[in-house]
Amino acid sequence: MTFKRKKISVIGSGFTGATAAFLLAQKELGDVVLVDIPQMENPAKGKALDMAEAGPVQGFDARVTGTANYEDTKDSDLVIITAGIARKPGMSRDDLVQTNQKVMKAVTADIVKYSPDSTIIVLTNPVDAMTYTVFKESGFPKERVIGQSGVLDSARFRTFVAEELNVSVKDVTGFVLGGHGDDMVPLVRYSYAGGIPLETLIAKERLDEIVARTRKGGAEIVNLLGNGSAYYAPAASLVEMAEAIIKDQRRILPSIAFLEGEYGMDGIYMGVPTILGAGGIEKILEIDLNDEEKELLEKSAASVKAVMEVLA
Amino acid sequence: MTFKRKKISVIGSGFTGATAAFLLAQKELGDVVLVDIPQMENPAKGKALDMAEAGPVQGFDARVTGTANYEDTKDSDLVIITAGIARKPGMSRDDLVQTNQKVMKAVTADIVKYSPDSTIIVLTNPVDAMTYTVFKESGFPKERVIGQSGVLDSARFRTFVAEELNVSVKDVTGFVLGGHGDDMVPLVRYSYAGGIPLETLIAKERLDEIVARTRKGGAEIVNLLGNGSAYYAPAASLVEMAEAIIKDQRRILPSIAFLEGEYGMDGIYMGVPTILGAGGIEKILEIDLNDEEKELLEKSAASVKAVMEVLA
Amino acid sequence: MTFKRKKISVIGSGFTGATAAFLLAQKELGDVVLVDIPQMENPAKGKALDMAEAGPVQGFDARVTGTANYEDTKDSDLVIITAGIARKPGMSRDDLVQTNQKVMKAVTADIVKYSPDSTIIVLTNPVDAMTYTVFKESGFPKERVIGQSGVLDSARFRTFVAEELNVSVKDVTGFVLGGHGDDMVPLVRYSYAGGIPLETLIAKERLDEIVARTRKGGAEIVNLLGNGSAYYAPAASLVEMAEAIIKDQRRILPSIAFLEGEYGMDGIYMGVPTILGAGGIEKILEIDLNDEEKELLEKSAASVKAVMEVLA
Amino acid sequence: MTFKRKKISVIGSGFTGATAAFLLAQKELGDVVLVDIPQMENPAKGKALDMAEAGPVQGFDARVTGTANYEDTKDSDLVIITAGIARKPGMSRDDLVQTNQKVMKAVTADIVKYSPDSTIIVLTNPVDAMTYTVFKESGFPKERVIGQSGVLDSARFRTFVAEELNVSVKDVTGFVLGGHGDDMVPLVRYSYAGGIPLETLIAKERLDEIVARTRKGGAEIVNLLGNGSAYYAPAASLVEMAEAIIKDQRRILPSIAFLEGEYGMDGIYMGVPTILGAGGIEKILEIDLNDEEKELLEKSAASVKAVMEVLA
Repeated sequence: MTFKRKKISVIGSGFTGATAAFLLAQKELGDVVLVDIPQMENPAKGKALDMAEAGPVQGFDARVTGTANYEDTKDSDLVIITAGIARKPGMSRDDLVQTNQKVMKAVTADIVKYSPDSTIIVLTNPVDAMTYTVFKESGFPKERVIGQSGVLDSARFRTFVAEELNVSVKDVTGFVLGGHGDDMVPLVRYSYAGGIPLETLIAKERLDEIVARTRKGGAEIVNLLGNGSAYYAPAASLVEMAEAIIKDQRRILPSIAFLEGEYGMDGIYMGVPTILGAGGIEKILEIDLNDEEKELLEKSAASVKAVMEVLA
Repeated sequence: MTFKRKKISVIGSGFTGATAAFLLAQKELGDVVLVDIPQMENPAKGKALDMAEAGPVQGFDARVTGTANYEDTKDSDLVIITAGIARKPGMSRDDLVQTNQKVMKAVTADIVKYSPDSTIIVLTNPVDAMTYTVFKESGFPKERVIGQSGVLDSARFRTFVAEELNVSVKDVTGFVLGGHGDDMVPLVRYSYAGGIPLETLIAKERLDEIVARTRKGGAEIVNLLGNGSAYYAPAASLVEMAEAIIKDQRRILPSIAFLEGEYGMDGIYMGVPTILGAGGIEKILEIDLNDEEKELLEKSAASVKAVMEVLA
Repeated sequence: MTFKRKKISVIGSGFTGATAAFLLAQKELGDVVLVDIPQMENPAKGKALDMAEAGPVQGFDARVTGTANYEDTKDSDLVIITAGIARKPGMSRDDLVQTNQKVMKAVTADIVKYSPDSTIIVLTNPVDAMTYTVFKESGFPKERVIGQSGVLDSARFRTFVAEELNVSVKDVTGFVLGGHGDDMVPLVRYSYAGGIPLETLIAKERLDEIVARTRKGGAEIVNLLGNGSAYYAPAASLVEMAEAIIKDQRRILPSIAFLEGEYGMDGIYMGVPTILGAGGIEKILEIDLNDEEKELLEKSAASVKAVMEVLA
Repeated sequence: MTFKRKKISVIGSGFTGATAAFLLAQKELGDVVLVDIPQMENPAKGKALDMAEAGPVQGFDARVTGTANYEDTKDSDLVIITAGIARKPGMSRDDLVQTNQKVMKAVTADIVKYSPDSTIIVLTNPVDAMTYTVFKESGFPKERVIGQSGVLDSARFRTFVAEELNVSVKDVTGFVLGGHGDDMVPLVRYSYAGGIPLETLIAKERLDEIVARTRKGGAEIVNLLGNGSAYYAPAASLVEMAEAIIKDQRRILPSIAFLEGEYGMDGIYMGVPTILGAGGIEKILEIDLNDEEKELLEKSAASVKAVMEVLA
């Protein structure tokens, strides 16, 4: 039917998944199914119902439902994966990778079964390797399996810069490449306030501090919260990518994309500037890098590959 | 200064407080200060920072900060109180009332000290008695101390009706009077879908079920979540009231207002239809009640008074 | 393709058509094609370009183009017809009807040719007869040929009531049946402010004045403008109906619908409460009318039929 | 009163003034007074009423009124001047300047009389000289008298670039300096798509064409319309500046500002990057120019001065 509403499934009803579901509903981007494991089905249903009850007040029409049954995700147009565990004190990186890899495999099997034509956005960490896992497991074309990290990293960078300059966040842009967080490759020379290069507005040492803070942006929130990690900005970032695809906006946003030669990389998923539209990643944009940036990107790629080697 | 941004303090950085802060920032209604007790200062700061980092993505300009220091709330235009404890298994109602009363007194003293010209919206339960406490403690004029319950109750009612009729939530209205939840007085004959009285669209038994579900709407979410209570719809309800006041919209919304003769009540705070604008509660609207409704309202008032008697 | 953007053609690039196109683009409801006759192709292109140039500032992604070539409307999902002439001094009603009927026939032939699966909303006056003409000419199922009048009439009514009561327009509802303007059947007893029946809030004589002003609402604007007729509120009304359909919101809105027995009418298009969703008019809602209302509706129907008899 | 709604007067109820009024109301930025000369009072009233009647449908609460009496503008917080004549075939530039200067003087006297604390945004052409006239005539501090041209010029540039690259307008930025239209100094090297310099994405000849088209952007619309000039994008540009000020967003936007030494200019109004916030132009940002850009800016300044010499 011409005007059929889009269906979006969010896998994982934790804070990020739930917040993403709420923001999707708020924007009337489609009906939302919030999925979790059987033990968490009731909380997922509870959050979904609570969100739906905000609809009359916030003025949105979107069905939001919770479930542990993948049949309810049938024919989703878009699927967002936030499921998985967070790294806990004492847990080795390899344990994290292998546990979440299992989650990705299980989740992907169900997505493929019920929504073979969907586009998938992955948030679960370590996100480059997890996006790769979903790609391999799904057999979907690469442009329909996308990871999120750069929108969030640059949002943090933009927040810090806007605060530093005391200007609107609307007029600050940031540009990042490579892996998430510590492995991020910030391209300060491609970042601006009102179109003016940041390097001419902020002293180098201060910019370096802002970049360092951005790299540790996730940890800063984790340390403050004491018991949990960021979810507002990550959810908003997921939803910006989702909106670009659903509305075919052809936004230029950093995505974790499967590289086949771009930036001299092959066979890995890594953060690069992309055009997001109806077809998912419609294009990877290649930009000139200087030697320092190339080196950082190599290092970031090496880090991604090291994680991929842990994959079963 | 003519165009000074509004300042809004949200007391209590739990789920409802934090979600309200986020929705206020999203709508660019002002800068938001999220306040909690010293032990929760870091989580409050963490949530505030996370929200702020969503700003560049969601496109809003609003400073959001967390604090445990009321000095940071100085000169707030609006204060929303979500602080206090939730009733836990085994806790008597009187314990709940007295604990939250202490919280209200402490919070109110600080609000009065730092923001003597502010308008206050209270969410803490039992909300009628807590709003009364804040009113008495603040010495503010009654129109500037307002409780929230009816917007949320009617949002739930509207959600259930829209689902029953399979129509847009935008076109369903609901009308409630009296206390929150169990003490709610639903005025079904003042509730419509597209202007058509619900009583002509839905069979009486089914409407009764919907009313019963609405009364227990908070408990339904609590039972599903297992460990917590609703926050999306409560936060959205608070923000709708805040927006009506900040933008002087003169919305007709149910508020918990101090009654001095209206509806035959005197000296208590209870849910009634009001006009919310720049001055807070600018008017209480009195409507005709039939005998059954009058009786329910008396019962609701008795219930509110019983709680007030527990107040120290 | 799953996420293909919707295509909306607006026939007639006069003030109402152009404003509707702009509002559609603003809401990112789809790409918009603004169509006019060859002599007006350049102005249509100019307006479309001007609108598109507002996109970066208002933050919307929508292609807006002007044309006189119906090939450019190919595969439109929705078509809005605003084309036709306005009644000029000295022009007989029959002349108006016959001229606009010719326009409808020509326009409809092209719509059917290029967009056989589209849904059509008609604004051209006399709108009941013109919607009927488009219905007959298109051979489309009745639920996909819809006329606009009641959304506008009730918007005017709501504006006047909100001003009278000094309350938010968001909380005032209005209900109209039957033909447009003079033939409007206002159902004041189904109209409310904050759910409270208007009849209890406004004295009968004053309400009668407001109803009378609503009936003459179009003429009031015409007289003030001196040279033209209303376009902001008519365009907003068209776009609300379009949004309900495109987003499958199942809004309860008054539409000009083809009646086959409803309200005791058969074979005519007339204003009735409907559910608007993905399928166009998904349902006609029948409500109880008292004798006075029935009589007014009969009169309105007679008036519509009188115009239909003029149709060639 | 803390939450008093802002009052915005728009002088000139032609297409741009009326469209600006509508967009201001839509965003609920304040109540809007649409002002025109006595002969045009009724059309101003008609447009205002028509807009107000769109409020219930579009969901905005804003009083919109038309008038020819400046008393109705009393205590405006912001005033937007769109009044004046457009250059007609055969009219000399000097005639245009002198006629519109008279209009500015008359309008400004009334603004100063009734709204001495207001901030003024000027659109009337030739806009640099007209903004200067309003500044001199008002005696207002320079930061509260601001002209619009760069937001519009860069919006056009961004539209053309987004179309060329087939990407979202949201991710394209443009940067212009100097006078409006022909005298515009486009700084292509400060313009980006997704942060990537346009010079690396579009061939130089094509970029030159886009710049040339931008310079003639107003004329392109004039030629297409045949009888009138652009108003959607100009109105949107005015409203973006107004919103930045009213909400104290500290947006970085190009404004026509009074220069006292900046960019080596003194005593003239010209387009430069500024920070717009509660105080109007809160800062002028100076950026490095290369020799070619300096030369173009000198030329633009000379052109502005030549017009200023015509001022009586």
